[in-house]
Amino acid sequence: MTNNIHQQNYEQRLAFLHDSIESGELFRIQRMLNSLRPGEIAHLVESSPPEQRKILWELIEQENEGEVLVELGDEVRTALMEDMDVNELKEAVQNLETDDMADFLRSLPNKVIHKTLASMDQQDRERVQEVLHYDEDTAGGLMDTSTLTVRPDVTVDVVLRYLRKLKELPTPLDNIYVVDKNDIFLGTLPVSTLLTSQPEELVGDIMNKNPFTISASTPSQEVAMVFEDRDLVSCPVIDEKDHKLLGCITIDDVVDVIRDEAEHSVMSMAGLNEEDDLFSPVPVAAKKRAVWLGTNLLTAFLAAWVIGQFESTLNSAIALAALMGVIPSMGGIAGSQTLTIMIRGLALGQVTNTNARSLFTKELLIGFLNGLVWAIVVFAISAIAFHEPSIGIVVAIAMLLNLIAAPIAGVLLPLLLKKLNIDPALAGSVLLTTITDVVGYAAVLGLAALTLPYWQKIFG
Amino acid sequence: MTNNIHQQNYEQRLAFLHDSIESGELFRIQRMLNSLRPGEIAHLVESSPPEQRKILWELIEQENEGEVLVELGDEVRTALMEDMDVNELKEAVQNLETDDMADFLRSLPNKVIHKTLASMDQQDRERVQEVLHYDEDTAGGLMDTSTLTVRPDVTVDVVLRYLRKLKELPTPLDNIYVVDKNDIFLGTLPVSTLLTSQPEELVGDIMNKNPFTISASTPSQEVAMVFEDRDLVSCPVIDEKDHKLLGCITIDDVVDVIRDEAEHSVMSMAGLNEEDDLFSPVPVAAKKRAVWLGTNLLTAFLAAWVIGQFESTLNSAIALAALMGVIPSMGGIAGSQTLTIMIRGLALGQVTNTNARSLFTKELLIGFLNGLVWAIVVFAISAIAFHEPSIGIVVAIAMLLNLIAAPIAGVLLPLLLKKLNIDPALAGSVLLTTITDVVGYAAVLGLAALTLPYWQKIFG
Repeated sequence: MTNNIHQQNYEQRLAFLHDSIESGELFRIQRMLNSLRPGEIAHLVESSPPEQRKILWELIEQENEGEVLVELGDEVRTALMEDMDVNELKEAVQNLETDDMADFLRSLPNKVIHKTLASMDQQDRERVQEVLHYDEDTAGGLMDTSTLTVRPDVTVDVVLRYLRKLKELPTPLDNIYVVDKNDIFLGTLPVSTLLTSQPEELVGDIMNKNPFTISASTPSQEVAMVFEDRDLVSCPVIDEKDHKLLGCITIDDVVDVIRDEAEHSVMSMAGLNEEDDLFSPVPVAAKKRAVWLGTNLLTAFLAAWVIGQFESTLNSAIALAALMGVIPSMGGIAGSQTLTIMIRGLALGQVTNTNARSLFTKELLIGFLNGLVWAIVVFAISAIAFHEPSIGIVVAIAMLLNLIAAPIAGVLLPLLLKKLNIDPALAGSVLLTTITDVVGYAAVLGLAALTLPYWQKIFG
Repeated sequence: MTNNIHQQNYEQRLAFLHDSIESGELFRIQRMLNSLRPGEIAHLVESSPPEQRKILWELIEQENEGEVLVELGDEVRTALMEDMDVNELKEAVQNLETDDMADFLRSLPNKVIHKTLASMDQQDRERVQEVLHYDEDTAGGLMDTSTLTVRPDVTVDVVLRYLRKLKELPTPLDNIYVVDKNDIFLGTLPVSTLLTSQPEELVGDIMNKNPFTISASTPSQEVAMVFEDRDLVSCPVIDEKDHKLLGCITIDDVVDVIRDEAEHSVMSMAGLNEEDDLFSPVPVAAKKRAVWLGTNLLTAFLAAWVIGQFESTLNSAIALAALMGVIPSMGGIAGSQTLTIMIRGLALGQVTNTNARSLFTKELLIGFLNGLVWAIVVFAISAIAFHEPSIGIVVAIAMLLNLIAAPIAGVLLPLLLKKLNIDPALAGSVLLTTITDVVGYAAVLGLAALTLPYWQKIFG
């Protein structure tokens, strides 16, 4: 009844992909890709490590490339496009819907946008430019400008015959829009009304004269709420001033908004971005995460300074007591970043047993790089601001150790919890900070006990 | 052209609601509610403090109550239903779709479920029982069992005449399902195909014979991914074994799954639940959050124990140095919980200037209650396990102060950031932990400096 690959879930597909690449049976991958939709292919691309991505990309049919690119996150898309020349790009995008095309063009450098626009026929160019004119995060930026319209003074029978003449109808098709000769919006003709009306009835008599409309400047977040709360499948976008029909928004674009928005909250709270790639290159990822770690270091030193104000209360070893809190704090942030990426990846079905090892290596490298950077910084601050070079060395080595331990725990913990059927989003974060606290304190104090006298001898 | 209230956004509606209640003009609220969809009414109910909710609920028309209840989060729904008797409930739910009805029944106590089922007519009862039979989190639990079906051996003209005879068609309507006389699924007839085909063509010739189908046991998370990646509006649900058509899933139910799933990640990471009510009663909310705080206290003491192992390194005042870390740690958790609730509320448009004050009071009370509880616990542990009653008192008072400061910062910080046009999800968490760290350390060490000698005199 149904095609086998259709019914495979993402985990099975990823394993199949991995096996086929290992055994060199690329034709099997090509057969699978031919049976998948662009969104599904994009999902597979995002779930694959960079080396596999390149192989996968070569196997995708050129006519599908544009739609797959549209479905990818910004970071992955940009990386793949760097290897394409302008002609390839132009061919990839020529079959896109206007809203997707506009989205796509926005992610390109200005020079390429103008070249691409110049190569299009006039009607397409005007449509895309109209959408480009609106902010990406508004109803105008989301809408598709090619709508199906009829006049109010025709009969149902005429509409049905008009539709039969069209080769292809837009999807999803739940409303036909009714406009006058100046494109002024008059109402909607729901397809269900069209189907249940008698052939001789007039569109103007059966149409919905007061349908819900959205103005082009409505923020996309509000568009999403309206679609959710009113269970809409499509909605006309109207010019606020002259009531002209500008286009329509469909539920598939709104679903993307909802998903992006939700991911934005999760990722932002760990100082990450929803467009970040699961497998972004180590130097790029390390740099992005360093910003957050640096901010945290500043605030952790603020806490250390507060502790230092109470020297007489804590007596000696005050510098160590004050500075040691920095280590678990930094480990907690680094670990949470890895954990958040893992939890999102697991929720989206992007992280599986097949690619866990590549992820682990990537996260470990990022941890090592950031560990080195912040070890140097923390040593410098301890030596210069706190006049404690010996304690600075101890704290620096502990920092490196904890920033290596944090991503290890961040990758392994959610995988382990998932195996035990415990929700990683729920239990992961408290377990993770326990690990980074204990490892952090043990490292800083253990190193101090074992090596501090030695460093003190060196620094006098 | 369009109704005024239609185009108001949620913030304007909430302000209007608040003003109308203040001035006693309840008829204005009734007029507004009459023009809104159940999902929008539910949104307003969730965004209102408990006292306003009751007024609002009285003003909702009875025929809408069922659908509004379905759209509410579990916690709010249960609270409202406690004030309804069985007859009111039965009347509220009688017009629901089978999938919504099943969802709704699942949230009721067993006794009420049986009573409600017994009161339904046989066809409805069988349909609901069929859905109830599947797990809530699977395709079977999501599907609606009332589908529009035709046979393959009829012509397009016959289908069109059949549809005209039906009073109402299901929405969204993008596919008509083709089955044989035993309900075995044969394919789909997309409405767009129906509209573009000639009247004399046979359904069997123009139908999609290999459409995408979902089996009833597919987890809802996977259903959501498939809808997203294939841009589906509806999808048939098929029995794996006998290929019978069981029902269909529509995009509006999937959008709810996506939203719930995304909220689940955000909320779980702060030890909260996506069904939690923005205005849940203080005792309920305080108890739920206490679980997470207690877990964190355990792990914070683990860190304190690690520090305590290095007594010789830190010399004197070791107990204070070890125990003081508990205070900022607990403040961080409590503050993050408030912050997460605020960030979700702001993202969903539920938190506005109108209700910020009620939220502030609620969070402050929760903080005070949890502060008292954990102050006592931390004193007991310090006195008994660490033999330091004097330090225990200092730490306990600091705990109370920091658990009051944390929700204050958690409510005010995101509101302030939003006013400054800074994303609270991005900047909130690092700023919040800075505040709880600094307040926490300053409280514990300041109190120690000022009052420790005094406590030591008392406890000897």
